[in-house]
Amino acid sequence: MTEHRAYKTIQKLERSAGFFPVILAMYRIGVDLGGTNIAVGLVNDDYVITARISVPTNALQAAEGVVAGIGDAIERVLEKSGLTGPDCAGIGVGAPGTCDTERGIVFRSYSLSWNNVPLAAMLEERFHLPVRINNDANCAALAEVKAGAAKGCKNVVLVTLGTGIGSGIVINGTIYSGYLGSGTEMGHMLLDYNGEQCSCGRKGCWDAYASSTALVVQAKRAAFSRPESRLNSLPQITGQSVFEAAEQGDVTAIAIINKYCEYLALGISNIINVLAPEMILIGGGVSSQGERILEPVRKYARENCFDKREEAMPIIKIASMGNEAGIIGAAVL
Amino acid sequence: MTEHRAYKTIQKLERSAGFFPVILAMYRIGVDLGGTNIAVGLVNDDYVITARISVPTNALQAAEGVVAGIGDAIERVLEKSGLTGPDCAGIGVGAPGTCDTERGIVFRSYSLSWNNVPLAAMLEERFHLPVRINNDANCAALAEVKAGAAKGCKNVVLVTLGTGIGSGIVINGTIYSGYLGSGTEMGHMLLDYNGEQCSCGRKGCWDAYASSTALVVQAKRAAFSRPESRLNSLPQITGQSVFEAAEQGDVTAIAIINKYCEYLALGISNIINVLAPEMILIGGGVSSQGERILEPVRKYARENCFDKREEAMPIIKIASMGNEAGIIGAAVL
Repeated sequence: MTEHRAYKTIQKLERSAGFFPVILAMYRIGVDLGGTNIAVGLVNDDYVITARISVPTNALQAAEGVVAGIGDAIERVLEKSGLTGPDCAGIGVGAPGTCDTERGIVFRSYSLSWNNVPLAAMLEERFHLPVRINNDANCAALAEVKAGAAKGCKNVVLVTLGTGIGSGIVINGTIYSGYLGSGTEMGHMLLDYNGEQCSCGRKGCWDAYASSTALVVQAKRAAFSRPESRLNSLPQITGQSVFEAAEQGDVTAIAIINKYCEYLALGISNIINVLAPEMILIGGGVSSQGERILEPVRKYARENCFDKREEAMPIIKIASMGNEAGIIGAAVL
Repeated sequence: MTEHRAYKTIQKLERSAGFFPVILAMYRIGVDLGGTNIAVGLVNDDYVITARISVPTNALQAAEGVVAGIGDAIERVLEKSGLTGPDCAGIGVGAPGTCDTERGIVFRSYSLSWNNVPLAAMLEERFHLPVRINNDANCAALAEVKAGAAKGCKNVVLVTLGTGIGSGIVINGTIYSGYLGSGTEMGHMLLDYNGEQCSCGRKGCWDAYASSTALVVQAKRAAFSRPESRLNSLPQITGQSVFEAAEQGDVTAIAIINKYCEYLALGISNIINVLAPEMILIGGGVSSQGERILEPVRKYARENCFDKREEAMPIIKIASMGNEAGIIGAAVL
């Protein structure tokens, strides 16, 4: 019996007898590594974050510096909880880029300017704990399946609407990363191969139509051609403020939001045609609009699906774990 | 030890001793059910079709008649081989539509005009053998992974270019069917949401640009506006004849083929961005062109991928099992 299995067995026995549940709970460390901040949390067996900390990434420094920062943050979280490394089962990191999950290497991250950083080995050396890494959106999708809006589902796609469109795929309850960790860039499916310029270099990706950045671009253009629109009196046009203007009855803003939901639904219908998941979750900034976007998206998506059977339509809803998904998903990798 | 396991053990012993390999080989029956023909084959443990038959589907009759036709064809194949039902491990059927693989029901097939046909139960009643069903393109993808061009690969997408674009996905070595068998209609991803009318009802699907039907439409349009083109002197414009005219130096045909390969590659790059499979196989009529399409498709696909790392590009090649894939894949479901 390995040490870990023995530990788990004791844990089960103790639990059934009602002894020492706090001391013997198994913790995992989850790291949500972003271009701006590093969030570290201690996650228990019930997928609850019992302690957390957030520190700046300082992405301009060399990778060694960022990884040292992750390590320091982990130590502070452990300290905060009165624990040490050996009290934990392992460390998981969600990184903003493509990862070789088997070898624990971040292949490439644009937001960190990383190429081939052996992140897992660097953290293993410091903490002598097993370290797993994966893409951040994949971690978020896994968290939703383990403990969030998609709990118990087998095949789920999470789409996050932020500066860009992120995506994570869970198939048969585990993350699908694709060959060499390249997969699941769903924001870079086409809506129009001759269309809007995308940040990836080609034209017409879904990202260039349905990210929150794209929504702001669409609103600015419309405001320029409609001087009477309330959008022109806003101190700043943001995704949030376009929705607010629409709510206050601004005709231009309403038209933009309707069109934006159509774009969103075109990509969702692509996902349904290609993967037919049980559930599609929407996360990221724009998802705070809830039913305001879900209702039109469901309608447009159904109209644009190949298989129009009512029962074949996946459930489309908002992701429930917000910022915690990254930490929890990384912890349970 | 179950009867089946005992049988397999005897089989292995006999094989290693060199006795009775023919008599003790395990056969499976594979049915490739098409809108025009029903192809039935007896498949051995080495994924070889040892006997086969093809009969017309007569799709205009009721489903009971088609299923009776499948049953009769199975009996003729068994008879041809001097076998009976109990000599076989099971029956598999690849059907042209969406299937509930767990309950063995063909939900919907446009080419057969079927809705909710309990195909597996109907054949089980007649043959008293386990019957499995799946979508025909999924069966073809499975066959390629088991014994064809993708042998040994884990994550593979097969795209078939025919009247429409079919697709099959294999993930972790098994067919991915999606929720309620709806998945993998990759031909119905968008290239241009305002573009060509697609047979599915919406505009701009890949199918409307890169199926062989679409190639013929593109060639007819071009021939009309270019009276000098050799295409105008053809008795009939087919996918094949456009490639031939291009090979003979017809400028219009060359331009059409180049554009067609671009359309093909746009969809392939979508597949890479969404699923990053190890390998993408191209099958169906147009695939007989081999390197003539592969070379430009690889070039355009790489240019259009999000992850441009050389090592992250999947292998793109032609499916190797042709018409046999449907039977073999169904047999090993």
